[in-house]
Amino acid sequence: MWFCAVRSDDLGKPGAFRTVQVGRESVIVSRAKDGSIRAFLNVCRHRGARLCAEESGEVRRAFQCAYHAWTYDLEGKLIAAPNLTKMPDIDRVAYGLVKVHVREWLGYVWVCLADEPPSFEEDVLGAVVTRLGDLTSIENYGVENLKVGRRIVYDVKANWKLIVENFMECYHCATIHPELTEVLPEFADGYAAQYFIGHGAEFGAGIQGFTVDGSPGVDRIPGVTEDQDRRYYAITIKPQVFVNLVPDHAIVHRMFPLAADRTVVECDWLFLPEVVESGRDLGPSVELFHKVNEQDFDACERCQPGMSSRAYANGGVLVPSEHHIAIFHDWVAGRLGLTR
Amino acid sequence: MWFCAVRSDDLGKPGAFRTVQVGRESVIVSRAKDGSIRAFLNVCRHRGARLCAEESGEVRRAFQCAYHAWTYDLEGKLIAAPNLTKMPDIDRVAYGLVKVHVREWLGYVWVCLADEPPSFEEDVLGAVVTRLGDLTSIENYGVENLKVGRRIVYDVKANWKLIVENFMECYHCATIHPELTEVLPEFADGYAAQYFIGHGAEFGAGIQGFTVDGSPGVDRIPGVTEDQDRRYYAITIKPQVFVNLVPDHAIVHRMFPLAADRTVVECDWLFLPEVVESGRDLGPSVELFHKVNEQDFDACERCQPGMSSRAYANGGVLVPSEHHIAIFHDWVAGRLGLTR
Amino acid sequence: MWFCAVRSDDLGKPGAFRTVQVGRESVIVSRAKDGSIRAFLNVCRHRGARLCAEESGEVRRAFQCAYHAWTYDLEGKLIAAPNLTKMPDIDRVAYGLVKVHVREWLGYVWVCLADEPPSFEEDVLGAVVTRLGDLTSIENYGVENLKVGRRIVYDVKANWKLIVENFMECYHCATIHPELTEVLPEFADGYAAQYFIGHGAEFGAGIQGFTVDGSPGVDRIPGVTEDQDRRYYAITIKPQVFVNLVPDHAIVHRMFPLAADRTVVECDWLFLPEVVESGRDLGPSVELFHKVNEQDFDACERCQPGMSSRAYANGGVLVPSEHHIAIFHDWVAGRLGLTR
Repeated sequence: MWFCAVRSDDLGKPGAFRTVQVGRESVIVSRAKDGSIRAFLNVCRHRGARLCAEESGEVRRAFQCAYHAWTYDLEGKLIAAPNLTKMPDIDRVAYGLVKVHVREWLGYVWVCLADEPPSFEEDVLGAVVTRLGDLTSIENYGVENLKVGRRIVYDVKANWKLIVENFMECYHCATIHPELTEVLPEFADGYAAQYFIGHGAEFGAGIQGFTVDGSPGVDRIPGVTEDQDRRYYAITIKPQVFVNLVPDHAIVHRMFPLAADRTVVECDWLFLPEVVESGRDLGPSVELFHKVNEQDFDACERCQPGMSSRAYANGGVLVPSEHHIAIFHDWVAGRLGLTR
Repeated sequence: MWFCAVRSDDLGKPGAFRTVQVGRESVIVSRAKDGSIRAFLNVCRHRGARLCAEESGEVRRAFQCAYHAWTYDLEGKLIAAPNLTKMPDIDRVAYGLVKVHVREWLGYVWVCLADEPPSFEEDVLGAVVTRLGDLTSIENYGVENLKVGRRIVYDVKANWKLIVENFMECYHCATIHPELTEVLPEFADGYAAQYFIGHGAEFGAGIQGFTVDGSPGVDRIPGVTEDQDRRYYAITIKPQVFVNLVPDHAIVHRMFPLAADRTVVECDWLFLPEVVESGRDLGPSVELFHKVNEQDFDACERCQPGMSSRAYANGGVLVPSEHHIAIFHDWVAGRLGLTR
Repeated sequence: MWFCAVRSDDLGKPGAFRTVQVGRESVIVSRAKDGSIRAFLNVCRHRGARLCAEESGEVRRAFQCAYHAWTYDLEGKLIAAPNLTKMPDIDRVAYGLVKVHVREWLGYVWVCLADEPPSFEEDVLGAVVTRLGDLTSIENYGVENLKVGRRIVYDVKANWKLIVENFMECYHCATIHPELTEVLPEFADGYAAQYFIGHGAEFGAGIQGFTVDGSPGVDRIPGVTEDQDRRYYAITIKPQVFVNLVPDHAIVHRMFPLAADRTVVECDWLFLPEVVESGRDLGPSVELFHKVNEQDFDACERCQPGMSSRAYANGGVLVPSEHHIAIFHDWVAGRLGLTR
């Protein structure tokens, strides 16, 4: 599947790289000489050493293995190694880095480890269309042009699927999200924005912005329509991305499942570049969803140990406002080749 | 099997609860409105969250899940949930907490996770009769009326079966229990009290009480007979309880197996209520068996790593004074469906 | 296989012992009354307790189990136990400690856990002959008469086979061993000394000794021939020993694999007894290979996580100067009963 790996902006100039864990593989995402993005398995073809041991960094013109100095250019081609000229049987392309498929969208680099990746249009864009009704609705926010105003990384002791289930329903909102339901009163009824195609949850009457205290937010994104103003939209892009849209910012979650009971979630708060550069206080905007994240991840951690209980052997029960989660369960079972 | 979970006294009034780990399940043991004890799997029926995250506490009238506010009364019945009235298909009894069988005896709550529990009379009371010859002998101590004077919790890096084997034999007493064999000289010969039906080990000539230094203990329990005076009785109730009886107190061990090589042992020293309330120094009484516990658990931890050695593949050897442990081995093999 | 366990000198007088982990077994290596070396599984025959819990120590005349006081003499025979005289069925030899085969060579104790050990001559001495061409070449160094001047223990987060592969090739020397290639310029070309039978890498022109800065070393070992002077020889004795020979000292590595991704390496720097006793500064001699060790183990740790990558599924590639490692791979596959 397509996996949202890195914010493109985090790869400033050619040679900049990030390493991310995608399932069992470490992947290098980097910017090539021509400014485009490439991704490779983070493994030297010679003896298997990690090529980049750091989470991020910058190389000049090539990746050089610290073990035997095998050297790969920014396109992944093997360009140098001790005695390489005396080794005619070492093909420089065949022993180049193992390439990983790459797409850019919303200002993020999405990677796919499959030999033949599935359709990005169907899987990723399709998820947005299914949720919002069309692509224009998200394009209005120009998420690819926004800047990261704040990034928070959460280490959650729960399976990623619990985090997806949690994000897909709002039956829990009245119980654990007092700040959010203050801003979005309809969430107190338990119906998540995601439940109705194209629907965005409306801000409460006295609410001036999507902030922890309802105070005004920052500059509205120009492309946002009147219909979209004063509304919150949430989109789940399986398997590991949540996109949240409000008039003056976007919040994007990327999940990195690291174990059956551990998921690292990297969450970006994205604003207009001039807002970020102005140094304005983003605290009230960030604080709202940071609280929501903490409340949600606490709940997920509370569920994790019960997953193996005989009391949960049948998977609990879904109330009407959660019934769309059954579609997620069917999808998981299908991907695992299970019949239910 | 029946598993000794909680001291009844620890559940003061209706709404008081304790959570205990019984194998892979977390169990809530609590006092209901009518003063009786109930036990439930500690898992919300809705999405599987832990209902009680604490080891002990007190609720007013109901258990409420912190995730979606599903609420269960002290009998386990589902009594409230957001929008519950609009969900006619949610049966309040069918979606009540999963009940766990409960019995009270010796002032402890015993639970059983089986659908059809085995006979408490045969399994639990039967173990005492097999050891002491009758039930009267233990009833004389009125253990259910005693109070906890001291509780010590031990975290032992050994399998629970090693702790049982250790408790069943006294061949090690001369080597590792100098204080105990001072008080009970016959233990130095290696024959555990448990070896002979009805036999209690006699205090040494100059010993005034079951204390670390042989000094006098506290007030004798009124029901204890002259035959039982100045004697120590030990009883193993499989799988996880040891009862120790002396004229002025009882010592009860409950084991909680947490992993193949880890067992938490909770040990209570129980005295007459007036003794505990008087604030008298229980130190010399507690110190004796606390030392024994530490000496025994050290020995068990020393055995654990050798269990997988080829030198122990046949299970070592049992000397004559340990031969009754073979019955324990047969019992374990039988429970596991192994033929030996 | 034969496993190099302990430096004989570390077992000073009768009763001195060391415990070492050999695969899944803890082994006691000790000096008997007659001064010879014995080895036993570190497990009491009675109930399986660890006999010696410490890494090293000294007993007077016997090993006594701390649990039930079963007592074994320095030959492993059961000589005492409580009530032993009343237990005619306990055969004192049959219930002696489980013996482990022992050989001494190069001043080390080698043990073998097999019932029928393979030929020490073929496996251990044979490895040296294969490498050096004859035994005389190593006998010249009189390694058994040298003394430990320094011992460093490394805890490496890598499989032991990565450490063997690393030691067998010098293609990495130019990249990670600047100090070593300064002393041994031919190593910069990537051909390890082990590649050619009998070959020892020659010191560089201005180099005065096998030291971190090329300064003079200490007193030359008398038996070293002119041919061997100013040369470095490395020998791999599978599965877990490296021997390094230079004119004035020997460096011996013993590996203790503790997990699939963890190996403890104990490295001895051995000098003439008079050199060690003189208190002369061994720092420059020790520092050279200590740096090499650190550089090598860093490289191995960098490879470990890549071993499960799909990019390494075929085992990477061996360049010409590494092709002899393929023989090691074939050997491993053979021992595992794999066909490649």
